[in-house]
Amino acid sequence: MLSKNSQTYMACDRDYDEAEIVLFGAPFDSTTSNRPGARFASRVMRAESWGLESYSPYQDLDLTESTRVCDLGDLELSFGESGLALAQIERTVEAILNDGKLPCMIGGEHLVTLGAVRAAARRIPGLAVVHLDAHTDLRQDYLGAELSHATVMRRVYELLGEKSIFQFGIRSGEREEFLFAKAHLCTRLHDLKGIERLEDELSGRPVYLSIDLDVLDPSVFPGTGTPEPGGISYAQLQEAILHLGRLNVIGFDLVELSPPYDPSGISAACACKALRELLLSLSKSAKAKQ
Amino acid sequence: MLSKNSQTYMACDRDYDEAEIVLFGAPFDSTTSNRPGARFASRVMRAESWGLESYSPYQDLDLTESTRVCDLGDLELSFGESGLALAQIERTVEAILNDGKLPCMIGGEHLVTLGAVRAAARRIPGLAVVHLDAHTDLRQDYLGAELSHATVMRRVYELLGEKSIFQFGIRSGEREEFLFAKAHLCTRLHDLKGIERLEDELSGRPVYLSIDLDVLDPSVFPGTGTPEPGGISYAQLQEAILHLGRLNVIGFDLVELSPPYDPSGISAACACKALRELLLSLSKSAKAKQ
Amino acid sequence: MLSKNSQTYMACDRDYDEAEIVLFGAPFDSTTSNRPGARFASRVMRAESWGLESYSPYQDLDLTESTRVCDLGDLELSFGESGLALAQIERTVEAILNDGKLPCMIGGEHLVTLGAVRAAARRIPGLAVVHLDAHTDLRQDYLGAELSHATVMRRVYELLGEKSIFQFGIRSGEREEFLFAKAHLCTRLHDLKGIERLEDELSGRPVYLSIDLDVLDPSVFPGTGTPEPGGISYAQLQEAILHLGRLNVIGFDLVELSPPYDPSGISAACACKALRELLLSLSKSAKAKQ
Amino acid sequence: MLSKNSQTYMACDRDYDEAEIVLFGAPFDSTTSNRPGARFASRVMRAESWGLESYSPYQDLDLTESTRVCDLGDLELSFGESGLALAQIERTVEAILNDGKLPCMIGGEHLVTLGAVRAAARRIPGLAVVHLDAHTDLRQDYLGAELSHATVMRRVYELLGEKSIFQFGIRSGEREEFLFAKAHLCTRLHDLKGIERLEDELSGRPVYLSIDLDVLDPSVFPGTGTPEPGGISYAQLQEAILHLGRLNVIGFDLVELSPPYDPSGISAACACKALRELLLSLSKSAKAKQ
Amino acid sequence: MLSKNSQTYMACDRDYDEAEIVLFGAPFDSTTSNRPGARFASRVMRAESWGLESYSPYQDLDLTESTRVCDLGDLELSFGESGLALAQIERTVEAILNDGKLPCMIGGEHLVTLGAVRAAARRIPGLAVVHLDAHTDLRQDYLGAELSHATVMRRVYELLGEKSIFQFGIRSGEREEFLFAKAHLCTRLHDLKGIERLEDELSGRPVYLSIDLDVLDPSVFPGTGTPEPGGISYAQLQEAILHLGRLNVIGFDLVELSPPYDPSGISAACACKALRELLLSLSKSAKAKQ
Amino acid sequence: MLSKNSQTYMACDRDYDEAEIVLFGAPFDSTTSNRPGARFASRVMRAESWGLESYSPYQDLDLTESTRVCDLGDLELSFGESGLALAQIERTVEAILNDGKLPCMIGGEHLVTLGAVRAAARRIPGLAVVHLDAHTDLRQDYLGAELSHATVMRRVYELLGEKSIFQFGIRSGEREEFLFAKAHLCTRLHDLKGIERLEDELSGRPVYLSIDLDVLDPSVFPGTGTPEPGGISYAQLQEAILHLGRLNVIGFDLVELSPPYDPSGISAACACKALRELLLSLSKSAKAKQ
Repeated sequence: MLSKNSQTYMACDRDYDEAEIVLFGAPFDSTTSNRPGARFASRVMRAESWGLESYSPYQDLDLTESTRVCDLGDLELSFGESGLALAQIERTVEAILNDGKLPCMIGGEHLVTLGAVRAAARRIPGLAVVHLDAHTDLRQDYLGAELSHATVMRRVYELLGEKSIFQFGIRSGEREEFLFAKAHLCTRLHDLKGIERLEDELSGRPVYLSIDLDVLDPSVFPGTGTPEPGGISYAQLQEAILHLGRLNVIGFDLVELSPPYDPSGISAACACKALRELLLSLSKSAKAKQ
Repeated sequence: MLSKNSQTYMACDRDYDEAEIVLFGAPFDSTTSNRPGARFASRVMRAESWGLESYSPYQDLDLTESTRVCDLGDLELSFGESGLALAQIERTVEAILNDGKLPCMIGGEHLVTLGAVRAAARRIPGLAVVHLDAHTDLRQDYLGAELSHATVMRRVYELLGEKSIFQFGIRSGEREEFLFAKAHLCTRLHDLKGIERLEDELSGRPVYLSIDLDVLDPSVFPGTGTPEPGGISYAQLQEAILHLGRLNVIGFDLVELSPPYDPSGISAACACKALRELLLSLSKSAKAKQ
Repeated sequence: MLSKNSQTYMACDRDYDEAEIVLFGAPFDSTTSNRPGARFASRVMRAESWGLESYSPYQDLDLTESTRVCDLGDLELSFGESGLALAQIERTVEAILNDGKLPCMIGGEHLVTLGAVRAAARRIPGLAVVHLDAHTDLRQDYLGAELSHATVMRRVYELLGEKSIFQFGIRSGEREEFLFAKAHLCTRLHDLKGIERLEDELSGRPVYLSIDLDVLDPSVFPGTGTPEPGGISYAQLQEAILHLGRLNVIGFDLVELSPPYDPSGISAACACKALRELLLSLSKSAKAKQ
Repeated sequence: MLSKNSQTYMACDRDYDEAEIVLFGAPFDSTTSNRPGARFASRVMRAESWGLESYSPYQDLDLTESTRVCDLGDLELSFGESGLALAQIERTVEAILNDGKLPCMIGGEHLVTLGAVRAAARRIPGLAVVHLDAHTDLRQDYLGAELSHATVMRRVYELLGEKSIFQFGIRSGEREEFLFAKAHLCTRLHDLKGIERLEDELSGRPVYLSIDLDVLDPSVFPGTGTPEPGGISYAQLQEAILHLGRLNVIGFDLVELSPPYDPSGISAACACKALRELLLSLSKSAKAKQ
Repeated sequence: MLSKNSQTYMACDRDYDEAEIVLFGAPFDSTTSNRPGARFASRVMRAESWGLESYSPYQDLDLTESTRVCDLGDLELSFGESGLALAQIERTVEAILNDGKLPCMIGGEHLVTLGAVRAAARRIPGLAVVHLDAHTDLRQDYLGAELSHATVMRRVYELLGEKSIFQFGIRSGEREEFLFAKAHLCTRLHDLKGIERLEDELSGRPVYLSIDLDVLDPSVFPGTGTPEPGGISYAQLQEAILHLGRLNVIGFDLVELSPPYDPSGISAACACKALRELLLSLSKSAKAKQ
Repeated sequence: MLSKNSQTYMACDRDYDEAEIVLFGAPFDSTTSNRPGARFASRVMRAESWGLESYSPYQDLDLTESTRVCDLGDLELSFGESGLALAQIERTVEAILNDGKLPCMIGGEHLVTLGAVRAAARRIPGLAVVHLDAHTDLRQDYLGAELSHATVMRRVYELLGEKSIFQFGIRSGEREEFLFAKAHLCTRLHDLKGIERLEDELSGRPVYLSIDLDVLDPSVFPGTGTPEPGGISYAQLQEAILHLGRLNVIGFDLVELSPPYDPSGISAACACKALRELLLSLSKSAKAKQ
């Protein structure tokens, strides 16, 4: 008789044991230097997801039948203590990977990715990161802090080494960051062109996928900490998600939705739809059914 | 490790069987004629409640220890079919009463009260209704509809008979409604004066309590369908709640929070605090502990 | 000396008798299951229309001279009683058609279309419906209700029969709805491609045109009940409107603008401009002048 | 069948000839130096007024039967040309006074009052002004402009002479303005105390009443150009309105509602209720009926 | 130790004497007839600019090193006195031009452009104006006022003569304005096509550049007085800015950002980024460094 | 010619050397656990202060002549590193105290107070803290963090010892916090009663004053991280400020304005007015002039 609408992301109500994908929220935004609020993303996405359908006409797959997802709820992260929060995330992702499941983290700000990559990198040799974003996130430090949304990919680089990060959509950063990216990463500017060639370039290499939703144009996705004009459309992201489904993705996140800057709710709608498409596209059991 | 924050009203996570009070949401606002949105109240109250403390310094009681509340979640009500929605509510309240528990319903618009009163009136002879509101809600029909937020107390009157409804805070209605109230109800205008005498007047009679939160002044509670200037302060409501705790309340509701008209969140904060105070004040086990 | 700005949609101030097109509002959204507020669309569109020009550089036509429109104001519809509201709409459209005029209805949620199509279908044999929307709207029922924004095109299908509904822009629904559409309707997914061929395909058949504005991308049109990412641009809708002007349109509606979710007003601006272009494009007298 | 809701302030639909009170909007805010938007007040008040009842339980009078009001709509005022706008207002008020009717102007910013007082002062000897406001409005000029919301009462003083302006609620201004007020006006600070003595003090003298709604506390009335904390409650304004009904009021205005700063709508609700109460309180025919 | 963030547009903190470009705000919107608020643009742009990087990956130039900009702050303009405000702007621009520097004005509404062009036209023979806008702005007068945002280009035409104004992006106006534009201006409709040919067409002629940001589509730039659907993307504006850098620009402005209608902040982000790109593109010293 | 409006809090433009009071912003909110945004308070207060007058009719004093304040701007604090941010604040306050001036800090969240008290306590023996707040802020730790807005007064207690903190307005906390307060602090619940006796109780003891603006009722001050219904009015705060002027205040702060939750701007208006009154009330030179 009673609805479960407010409790999980739509149709992600499997028990942990039977789940193929394990979703959790990381409501942390303490290092956000511009507009805070990403802490509310997972809560809002769960509530808004029920306004969408569970069926994807793009993939002819349905969340309720094509995959098995468990939504654990949110981590309870300490604010103002970045190191502690990252450790909690790392432990969670490690446990999920140890159980042979695919972790799916809803940010929070982009720093949360570091916790997940730490867990994955220790366990999975040869890990690559595919990174969609408007910003390079490659600073050495930010106002003295080495753990920051603005430094996260520099820290990931230190973990994974040369040419292991594949960036798309980048259109903002300091000159030094662009020079660093050119020397040490695989960075494509402005849009997602070339993402269809990743399958060949990575040829089965294990991939952690991190999508900073501000890769979308602010018209499409206003609700984010640092909107950067000149981004991609939702249709372009949708198409990319289908390409990303052909990679060997072992974990992924969706970060930087900031609901307080999304008064019309269209950013939440984008985030929810992208998540549905990712859950279907990255699910091995769903692919087997196609 | 994981937080339950988004799933229940704070600290209301007991199992149904051990619960003294059973809380549920009735997300329905199809007959709202002015500003819709009360359907979102229960979802928002659950999320916002975690910004409050579970301890009440007014009553020196704490939700986590002084009472046992089960939050069932929301009913899944049909929109645009008032009769069907009321039937679902009636069945729910009946089941809770049959199990010897106290039902607590979060509206939704005020019409939802009729479903609860129908269940209670059939089961409990001599039932009275205590009704806090800015509006009389005593129309015979509204644009042809007999089931409406604007007619709900007329329908309740038809169930309970003469002088069984005790209204407080009333400051808006048609002349005919005020004349009807004078003839058939116990109606006090403008504020809550006299509520401290209810204990004597009702002398143990079973009471269903219905609080339309627009009894508060719009400065205190802007987020409602039909804000009516000239209402009471939160402190006055707080004091009244302590008086209401001395009555023989067998069920209650809190209705007409409309989150889309509450951009600063202060209405949700009021609703959450009033609910905490009511849960403590109306709990028999809490009172036994004092 | 006094302005008429707040009373009619701009430049639609002809008397009923001399009007070619008769515009009215249908402020109803009782079955909206996600975000309510479409009830406010006609009021807001009238007010905001005065920020536009009455002249269209796209068509080189001007509302003040090229056509004759009467704005009747809003119907006073009963909330929470879908059947009654539809009957009122049906009577209004029937009267307008009987007087040899073109009805133009501003919703309200999409269910209002059913009232208009009922009136038109009874009077006009061989009626087809051209339907622009993000959603299929083809459910058999929604939470038990057969009259719903989510079922409206199923009901229309029951009136008009096989292959009489021509859908464009569809990108959301249940799998069953897509299968139903494939079997019984003429449905094109994602965008408006092929709309330029409708003139040939319909070859003079009488058409009722229903535009659910959520066919637009949420970036362009955030203010709607259920925003669905991946839609069309305003420029694409503008071009389609010129094509639609070549059909034998006997009535039309524009639905699902929800002003509470349009804080910047751009959705209202789109709706107003689309309406100006439709009034000019669908007016037979305007076409005669070109 | 059709509603008139969006066209006049509720229940103010009499023809000009039979009207006792003539209401019109003055949508002008060109000199507003802080937050603009008062231009939208009359449009919003008309729309929102229908959420109120036409019956006043405070006065036991009903707008539909106790008085006769004609709502002319809005003046079409030139922006950026204060002198021209004032002349239009002056001509309108003059015409209404010449016809023996009571003018009621909805601002707009406070400068519009000058146009009305110019018309009244020329025609009615011995005119006094009763002025409720948070601000003195007594500057000699503002950034070089002599026509400004910040100078309007200085200009009125120049027309009416010593001790003809009775100010209440004043809590903001420059030191010089307070000194000027002390010397030349009758000014009471902070609240409305003493307003009940006006009947005696004015003993029948003709009065133009100007209510700047920012006299209310910003918690009660946030939607205004320059919110000034420390103001009065709605209940205090309500009580004052009853006292003002005993004066010989020959015209009045309600100014400085700025809807863009009223996201929850409570300021509009206050303005509408105050207007209903004023229309009933100041109507001679209503008083005759009591 | 202390941040200068709130005081200047990012990285524009050179002293006047050493500056190549002199930036100032013109917070004036008294003639705005639709939605006011452009007065707040310069204040908001200064604050929001710090969320961007000073480095442009599009031009490989950095504001902190590639050019020298002084931000003077805002003019203190008289509201409600258009002539006086224009005179203040004219004096400021004249002084900057006399000092051999490039003036950069942040509006305010579009009328402010007239003050700047008056100063430039008197000093610089053969001046042309390049004008990006959704609206023609070519009325003879607006509600009787000759100085208005709706007439500004007509006044500019009177100063500069035939075929001296090059308009792009135009998609709204009265029929008469379009006819006037065809006869006397060089006007391209809808988008920026052809802007790459301006370098040849103008062949070194001195240019004042005026960008009304509503040339952007409302999805990209909702925060403006009169949003007009069907505009350009940010990427198209970005590309045009690079072309404009090849003209002989002697002064420029960016007008019609209205922050109150930009609740998500994306319009401010666009305006800030466009300004960064313009400051780099139009700087002669920056070009010399490339 | 140019306005300084956006650069300092109104009328606080003295050079550091001649200043009696030194104002600075501490834009930090990394430990805010509920609704972030206090980082924007100082920026918004500077901008909004210019809508107020510099003259106080309550004290008959004017900021421009009665005192000398230097506004240093904002500290550039590291996000996500509470310890580092506190150290920066501590150094700033120490420098100001060393120069014999009165520090005035605009928060930021309440944790910033700890930095200021550390500086003051080391330098000034016998320091007391007067603390206005809705919340006890006395937790030992919060989710493992010892530096938090929820623990700040516990940390202050550890610095100052028994019965050195005088709390007013408290109405929320855990039971343990209330017990702790009773044992070790001087805590008055709910409102400011008794504040007029502080002069006697403290008899010249040096006082650091910390005002968490959420001591105000949410109707008066919605824009804060954790609104707590049942607070005081602005008039009560105003009266208290005059009493506080009689204490030996050696430094003070105003914290927890969160502009993103203040859509109507009334919270900023309250904060600005309270600051004006405090600057006048706590200025020794102003007092000497009275």
